[in-house]
Amino acid sequence: LSRFTVKILGSSSATPTSARNPSAQLVNCDEKLILIDCGEGTQIQLRRMKVKLNRINYILISHLHGDHFFGLIGLISTMNLYGRTEELMVYSPKGMMEIIEIQLLASQTVLQFPLKFNVIDPNEGFIELFEEKSFNVFSFPLVHRIETCGFLIREKDRPLKLRKERIESLDIPLDKFLEIKNGANYLQPDGKIIPNSHLTYPPVKPRSYAYCSDTRYCEDIVEYLMNVDLLYHESTFMQSEYEIAHEKYHSTAVEAAKIAKLANAGKLLLGHYSARYKDLLPLLEEARAIFPESFLSFEGMNIDIEVREQNINRE
Amino acid sequence: LSRFTVKILGSSSATPTSARNPSAQLVNCDEKLILIDCGEGTQIQLRRMKVKLNRINYILISHLHGDHFFGLIGLISTMNLYGRTEELMVYSPKGMMEIIEIQLLASQTVLQFPLKFNVIDPNEGFIELFEEKSFNVFSFPLVHRIETCGFLIREKDRPLKLRKERIESLDIPLDKFLEIKNGANYLQPDGKIIPNSHLTYPPVKPRSYAYCSDTRYCEDIVEYLMNVDLLYHESTFMQSEYEIAHEKYHSTAVEAAKIAKLANAGKLLLGHYSARYKDLLPLLEEARAIFPESFLSFEGMNIDIEVREQNINRE
Repeated sequence: LSRFTVKILGSSSATPTSARNPSAQLVNCDEKLILIDCGEGTQIQLRRMKVKLNRINYILISHLHGDHFFGLIGLISTMNLYGRTEELMVYSPKGMMEIIEIQLLASQTVLQFPLKFNVIDPNEGFIELFEEKSFNVFSFPLVHRIETCGFLIREKDRPLKLRKERIESLDIPLDKFLEIKNGANYLQPDGKIIPNSHLTYPPVKPRSYAYCSDTRYCEDIVEYLMNVDLLYHESTFMQSEYEIAHEKYHSTAVEAAKIAKLANAGKLLLGHYSARYKDLLPLLEEARAIFPESFLSFEGMNIDIEVREQNINRE
Repeated sequence: LSRFTVKILGSSSATPTSARNPSAQLVNCDEKLILIDCGEGTQIQLRRMKVKLNRINYILISHLHGDHFFGLIGLISTMNLYGRTEELMVYSPKGMMEIIEIQLLASQTVLQFPLKFNVIDPNEGFIELFEEKSFNVFSFPLVHRIETCGFLIREKDRPLKLRKERIESLDIPLDKFLEIKNGANYLQPDGKIIPNSHLTYPPVKPRSYAYCSDTRYCEDIVEYLMNVDLLYHESTFMQSEYEIAHEKYHSTAVEAAKIAKLANAGKLLLGHYSARYKDLLPLLEEARAIFPESFLSFEGMNIDIEVREQNINRE
C-alpha cells in the first residue's frame, strides 16, 4: 500500500503558545507532499522534523486569517534560497498572491522557481482542485467569518485484484487481464461467461483524509465527508464555551465529534485549540463521549491513514 | 542607573536553522521597550522569554528583507488579540505599511490600537527618529542590496552631580541648585565666583547601543558609532568567505571587529550568522584577534549595557 500520512506541524488557534504552533499539517500521499495551512513558524517546524522544504509540491491555504498563512512568505523565501527550481502550486481563497507579491517586491526578490496561485471560490461548493496519478484533492466551503474552505484528499479507486489460481486454471490469456481488472467478465472460447466476481478480489478501498479548519458547526459539510478514514475537525473550545465558539465561528470538541459521527468517519483528529487550554484532556473526553475514535493532535505527531476493515455504512 | 539592556531573540541570517532564529532584538531603555527587527517567529521567541508583547512601545525595522520583518504581521495580530489599546510606532524604510495593511485587509482585521508607520529615508543620513525622556533614537544608512538602516540608541546627558558637602559649607541656597547642576558657576553674595567644577562631580556618562545589520563593510558608518558602549554588527561570514560577503553585501566577523576598533566601541556583539556555520567559535576567534572585546550573540542572551570606566578617546 502506498504511503498516506499526516504530520501535525501546529495545533494552536489564533496565537502560538509556548507549546503549540499555529495551524499547519503536512500530508504525504503517495510521495507527493501537500502542506495544508502555513501559520507563522511552519518552516521552522518542518526543519525540526527534518522535512526537506523543497519536496513540498502543493500548498493549500484554508483561509486568510493570519494563523493559517503568516508562515507562507517565509517558507517561499527559504525555498528560493535553497535553490528550488520545480513549480510550487498554491491553492487558497482570493488575496494570497497579492500578499506574497508585495513582500517579494519589497525585498526585490525574484523567485527562481515557478510559483502558481490558484484561487478557490468557496461559493462554488465541492470542487476538484487537482488530481495526481493516485489521488484527487477537493475543496468545499466551511462556515467562518471570512471565505474558508476545507480539503479532502482521496485516493483513486484501485483496479480489482486477479485471483491468480483461477485465472491460471481457466487458462485466461494475458491480454484479457486489464479488462478483467477493470471489472469485465470473461467470455470463454466455448461461449461460457465467467463472471468477474469469480475471477477477482475486491481492491483495497481508497483511503481519504479531510481537513476542516476553521468552521462553525455545520451539518451541510457532512455530505463531503461521508466515510472519510481520518477527519481533522477544528475543536477550538470546550462545550462550556459553546456560545463563544458560535459567535467566533469556531467549533467545540463536542461539535467536531458530532460531525465525525454523522459522517461515519474512521478517526477524528482534534486541533486548533484555544490558547486558554493548557490541559487538553477535557476536550478529548467531551469528544470521545460522542465519538470514541477521537484523538488529540499535537506537534510532531504522525498518522498513517489506514484502510478500515470494518465499515458497515460503506458502499 | 536606569535599565539599558539588549535581549537577543534571533541570531541567524537569511533562513532560520534548528538552533537559531532570524534577526530580532529587544532593547529595554529606561523601561521603554524597543524591538529591533522582527524575523519570522519573533512573537514565539518573545513568549518563550516571558516578554509581555504589549509592553513593546517601538518597533524598528532595518530593511525589508524577509528575515528582518516576516514576523511583524504575526506580532501585530497577536498584540491586537491580546487587547492592546496603546499606540505602536513602527519605523522602517518605505513599504512596510503596505505589507501590513494588505494582510490585515485580507483577514478583515480592524486593529483596536493606533498603529503608526514612520518611513525612514536612509539617504537622509544620520537622523533622529524620536526621543524619550532619557534617550534619543537615531538611524543611519548602511550599505546593503536594498535600502537599509542602522540604529543608535543613546541616553541623554545627565545633569552634573552636586558635591553636597561643598554646597553646604558655602551655604548655597536651594534655588541655585538647578543651574549649578546644569553647569553654572556660583556667584557668592561677596562677589566671589565659585567655579562649577568645585561644586559638582561629572555625571555618569550616557550609554549607547548601536545596531548594524545588514551591511557590507563600510568605514563611513564609523562616525555615527564613535565610542558606542555596545555595538552589534552583523558578521554573516568567516574571513575565508570574504568574497561571498562582499558580493552579497554582508560582512565578515573580521570586518565587524575592524569597525568596532575604528569606532572605539566598548564591546562588539556578533550575529546574523550564516546557516553554514554550526560552530561559531572560529568567527569569534577571528574577531577577537582584531577586537578583543568581541562576543557571540545567541538566542536568550541578555546584555546589560554598562558605563565604561576607562575610555581614553572619549570626550
